[in-house]
Amino acid sequence: MNRRGIAVLGSTGSIGTQTLAVARAFPDDFNIIVLTCGDNAELLIQQALEFNPQAVVINNEDKYIQVKEALAHTDIDVFAGLQALEEVVQLTDIDVVLNAIVGSAGLRPTVKAIQKGKDIALANKETLVVAGELVMDLAAKHQVRMLPVDSEHSAIFQCLVGEEQNPIEKIYITASGGPFRGKDRDFLTHVKKEQALKHPNWVMGAKITIDSASLMNKGLEVIEAKWLFDLSVDQIDVIVHPQSIVHSLVQFQDGSMKAQLGLPDMKLPIQYALTYPARFQNNFQRFNFMDYPSLTFEKPDLETFRNLALAYEALARGGNQACILNAANEVVVDAFLKDRVSFLGMSDVIEQVIQSVDYISTPTLADYLETDKVSRIKALELVTKLN
Amino acid sequence: MNRRGIAVLGSTGSIGTQTLAVARAFPDDFNIIVLTCGDNAELLIQQALEFNPQAVVINNEDKYIQVKEALAHTDIDVFAGLQALEEVVQLTDIDVVLNAIVGSAGLRPTVKAIQKGKDIALANKETLVVAGELVMDLAAKHQVRMLPVDSEHSAIFQCLVGEEQNPIEKIYITASGGPFRGKDRDFLTHVKKEQALKHPNWVMGAKITIDSASLMNKGLEVIEAKWLFDLSVDQIDVIVHPQSIVHSLVQFQDGSMKAQLGLPDMKLPIQYALTYPARFQNNFQRFNFMDYPSLTFEKPDLETFRNLALAYEALARGGNQACILNAANEVVVDAFLKDRVSFLGMSDVIEQVIQSVDYISTPTLADYLETDKVSRIKALELVTKLN
Repeated sequence: MNRRGIAVLGSTGSIGTQTLAVARAFPDDFNIIVLTCGDNAELLIQQALEFNPQAVVINNEDKYIQVKEALAHTDIDVFAGLQALEEVVQLTDIDVVLNAIVGSAGLRPTVKAIQKGKDIALANKETLVVAGELVMDLAAKHQVRMLPVDSEHSAIFQCLVGEEQNPIEKIYITASGGPFRGKDRDFLTHVKKEQALKHPNWVMGAKITIDSASLMNKGLEVIEAKWLFDLSVDQIDVIVHPQSIVHSLVQFQDGSMKAQLGLPDMKLPIQYALTYPARFQNNFQRFNFMDYPSLTFEKPDLETFRNLALAYEALARGGNQACILNAANEVVVDAFLKDRVSFLGMSDVIEQVIQSVDYISTPTLADYLETDKVSRIKALELVTKLN
Repeated sequence: MNRRGIAVLGSTGSIGTQTLAVARAFPDDFNIIVLTCGDNAELLIQQALEFNPQAVVINNEDKYIQVKEALAHTDIDVFAGLQALEEVVQLTDIDVVLNAIVGSAGLRPTVKAIQKGKDIALANKETLVVAGELVMDLAAKHQVRMLPVDSEHSAIFQCLVGEEQNPIEKIYITASGGPFRGKDRDFLTHVKKEQALKHPNWVMGAKITIDSASLMNKGLEVIEAKWLFDLSVDQIDVIVHPQSIVHSLVQFQDGSMKAQLGLPDMKLPIQYALTYPARFQNNFQRFNFMDYPSLTFEKPDLETFRNLALAYEALARGGNQACILNAANEVVVDAFLKDRVSFLGMSDVIEQVIQSVDYISTPTLADYLETDKVSRIKALELVTKLN
């Protein structure tokens, strides 16, 4: 493999910093071309000084001067704002864009990168949740690889290697069940963000951790899987697996199932997305059966955790429905983290937004962006009414 | 895929009849060219009349006339005896020889078939246990595929599809633990063949069922895996998994693990060996997590079940050691089924035979056949002394 040029979008977040840990371990194989972040100027500067990329982008324009001055003695180009993001992903030396932006803001840079023929390592699941059909069609047209970084989708992707000719009968996406597994709606009425932020197995950013607690993360993953692997809704099952060791499974049409397993460590799917189809030797901690004498599985509780049911319904209706679901969810998770909506109130708001925003059966990119905007406004209105 | 010509060696046994069930389900894909069995003339005749092969072989020469007369009105050639077996596997229309002969008698037909360029679907693990290095070298030379039929090796083979370039770090061969899992040597002192023949998960022939109870089957599988997948002894672990759902696992050098799973049903690995790399749609019963809410794993007890330790030791010493182990085991299992040796006495005899037969570091085929013979004589002597 030649040294691969990599753009890391969202480099200061959980996935971004772990991506750089992988890049640090294989300096002869990976060349960091672009680093971008939202707001964390200090860490962005530190990363830029270490990896010496061609360009960095800070989304918060108020911090542009700070970054610019800190890197003034280098050759690194410094930009600010969302528009710059769409430009830097097009740089010639980039082979793969690892998109770890949180939320639907990740969509436009992904589209630009695909149009320039860059492979996509996708941690930003919202890109496919919002506009999966459009993005996958575009990827096929430009012959770029869509390499999943989510542990569940990476698992399925790994199970499918060498099986390209063999139809999938169904997939099982595993779910830890989050911190509230087994709880009922009475309990959930009173939970606080501090409880929701304590994930039993995975250390992740705040948005995805809340989504895990509400099972919306699993709903978004179901939608992402539909597009990544070209499946129908009834081919996708969610199974709760509290130990988070079996990362997901594929069942083929002969009844044989393959699973990918390992300790919960995002560095592995990140590394695989960057080295695929090769597997690089590393010193990540290995799984030991003696630490996990029992792997357990149970059905998800879709009545208590309504978000997962809402996601299945949105996917079944198609069009802009998943885009609405996702936009409303981003607003309510932000509101939950600011104590402006209750844990169960999140599903209520999402459901109302879905009912109130117009259905579009075959949306264009502009339709998706407009749906995203309108849905956010509606969700914010509903949250404001509650306060 | 063109219609594949198949020779089924051991067609009246458990694997043989299940192979014909698979062939029956896909008449446009599989053409049965040869059927052979040891002694069951009635079933062989019935199978021959259904599948209309070019030739059949019955090993028991006393039953030749019976088979010959029953098939006199057909074009089917009828032969008897071991020598005929080595000839029929060479027939032009055979693409793959499914070898389900029990014991080291399977070695010579496998060698002949490989020399004629036939792919081998291997249920006869003794072929590789006895002469793994020689057989795999021969297979490489004649560019034939060695397609495992054992569920564990099929699992590993399936996990390796598309990963040819990626080094294996280790494999885990799963073991049900058999009917005596968790028992101590005091208990095993008094067990009878009726108890040993009750396997908790798999319905199999008598020899392999006893081997499963004594863990010798797992020992033979470790040796088979070494040769099939070109591994060193310390890359092969055995893990007891009483539910027999995870059929085995591979760990790659990036720490990622893949497993193949499914209900315990030999028809699946048989079908996969015959359709590889394709997977044919079938109506085998599907796995359901709700029936298996917990998959458990534990270390094998090598002090109580000494056969597995003996197999690891024989493999580590190399040369003709596994051949001695296997020959002695065949004799003691036969003796156990005739109440001529106790359950624990089997390991004692095997260990004594290993100590008494000469070590050969790089045996020829003739050396293997001689070792097999000498080891059987020694084992029989020891069994006779006990009675």
